[in-house]
Amino acid sequence: MSMSAGRAGAGGVWQLPKPYLVFLGDVRLATLAKTGFGVRDWAGHDCVGQWRLSPDAISLELPELDPKQAAARGARALLIGVASVGGQLPQAWIDSLVAALDAGLDLISGLHSKLHDVEPLRQAALRNARTIYDERHASGDLPIATGRKRTGRRLLTVGTDCALGKKYTALALTRALRVLGVDADFRATGQTGIMISGSGIAIDAVVADFIAGAAESLSPDAAPDHWDVIEGQGALFHPAYAGVTLGLLHGSQPDALVLCHAAGRTETAHFSGFPLPSLEDAMQAYLPHARRANPAARFVAVSLNTASLADADARKLAAETEERLGLPVFDPLRFGVDAVARSLI
Amino acid sequence: MSMSAGRAGAGGVWQLPKPYLVFLGDVRLATLAKTGFGVRDWAGHDCVGQWRLSPDAISLELPELDPKQAAARGARALLIGVASVGGQLPQAWIDSLVAALDAGLDLISGLHSKLHDVEPLRQAALRNARTIYDERHASGDLPIATGRKRTGRRLLTVGTDCALGKKYTALALTRALRVLGVDADFRATGQTGIMISGSGIAIDAVVADFIAGAAESLSPDAAPDHWDVIEGQGALFHPAYAGVTLGLLHGSQPDALVLCHAAGRTETAHFSGFPLPSLEDAMQAYLPHARRANPAARFVAVSLNTASLADADARKLAAETEERLGLPVFDPLRFGVDAVARSLI
Repeated sequence: MSMSAGRAGAGGVWQLPKPYLVFLGDVRLATLAKTGFGVRDWAGHDCVGQWRLSPDAISLELPELDPKQAAARGARALLIGVASVGGQLPQAWIDSLVAALDAGLDLISGLHSKLHDVEPLRQAALRNARTIYDERHASGDLPIATGRKRTGRRLLTVGTDCALGKKYTALALTRALRVLGVDADFRATGQTGIMISGSGIAIDAVVADFIAGAAESLSPDAAPDHWDVIEGQGALFHPAYAGVTLGLLHGSQPDALVLCHAAGRTETAHFSGFPLPSLEDAMQAYLPHARRANPAARFVAVSLNTASLADADARKLAAETEERLGLPVFDPLRFGVDAVARSLI
Repeated sequence: MSMSAGRAGAGGVWQLPKPYLVFLGDVRLATLAKTGFGVRDWAGHDCVGQWRLSPDAISLELPELDPKQAAARGARALLIGVASVGGQLPQAWIDSLVAALDAGLDLISGLHSKLHDVEPLRQAALRNARTIYDERHASGDLPIATGRKRTGRRLLTVGTDCALGKKYTALALTRALRVLGVDADFRATGQTGIMISGSGIAIDAVVADFIAGAAESLSPDAAPDHWDVIEGQGALFHPAYAGVTLGLLHGSQPDALVLCHAAGRTETAHFSGFPLPSLEDAMQAYLPHARRANPAARFVAVSLNTASLADADARKLAAETEERLGLPVFDPLRFGVDAVARSLI
């Protein structure tokens, strides 16, 4: 039987077909193409090219290919690398996505609209025996957490807030560990992360009872010196998403925690009246919860997003913070993460 | 158009049709009839009768009625008051549930099986223009939490573990407040609670991103002296469900917290190796998270489930604990809750 709705597999973990043709549509705003940039930066070898519907659309500087050309070069799926303006699926995109299915590609989407419910797409997927992966939907069968201690080592990035570099930090640390010859896997918990790694669980989309269980199945038993570097979500202080954060923390049972913070941010983004804790208070809040699942849990570093600062100021702040906390402080975009990676092995 | 799949309404809050005919099937084990007993004990005026398929089935001591008789007495729905052995839907139940739909009753179910997916039931619901309320499914459209402080007053029961009296405590306090003339509502967060109150949100069944948002829509703005008494779920120390607990705590933004504990329990039920915290440590863990959403949050009492103790021992333990903590300690099943209710007004 030909499958047409992609579903997460065992334990709710997605497995996506690679390599990708990255679809950019007619989107001109770089802020709408975060997925595309993320996939290019972190899984560039999995991107055979890009497909733009307009010459003034965003470019990832990948080879320009249409679906047929991409399929001929081995692409297995069209990955939608942009958010649509306003969240609606533009008509022009539908026709293009049908063309991709007709060229033999699967579809991978993190859009709010469920592509599988769009009749022309469903028909085209059926006709071509292709699969549509709607990452925001169909999270599969998840287990209830057991709390059983698993083998192997785990690092989780946690934050003072959302959107300040938890995914980027985890990716950078995974890469640095691998360069050092360590057997390490990035474990994705959000849709861009899943597209980058080709597998993972969108932890904020699972049913509440299964948050910790999903985190457990995301990083299964492994060899004693293997590291899972797990992408954190939300923040324990976040008025909307703290439940996701706590369940992920428990289920991940990390040995090592990296606290992520954006320099200069003093309030929860989009939630005025919710000040951010100090780095010290944040670590003190996370630790007892982390130790409930793994008594050996400890903070190993602070990842400071210094995008708002000039280079000299960024280095000064990092040095001061390092001095104050007695922990390595780094900005994965600016200063190497090697020292932190080395400290883990 | 006749509706046949019951869905939660605005903000994901269920509204169930009352009064009920309580279905007990052929179940003989009282432990499988917790829903039936809960509905009888706390919403007895909403139960026109019980329907048993066998004379040796559990009895709630309600009038014995079949669906036609119940419908004639005003029943609007058949409520499944028992869990099925093994979780499967017995064939004999299906025929009986069809008979209930044919008699003009809606169906209310908290079973894991989705009744709406059982073809004979779906057909009978369509044929009779009846609704099937599958409480574990279809949680409706929920909002992301805003953290905005709402008007009115709120009490949340929290615990050291699952299954030790959080629902019972909330129901008892609501009743006691009403007896004192206080405008109070019980806010249900689990399926038995929803069946009892006729409305609510099964908070562990919502998508993780919406836990706090669901809790916010469950207890909307109210008059300044109105109390919402919210049924707690899980525990902040629970390896599987802590995320649900934290999201519910944030979204409920309680003024008053009641800590629930089962006397003598030292380990998380079904999770060996996860010892329970002391009552002091539990309160210290809950408070900072509660104050994130409501700086005025405080513990007002401890609810001690003393079912495992003789009466004299229970009273002695309550007195000692009260002395130690400087807070009222009560067992809602054993000692009145009036003093605590009075302390709130």
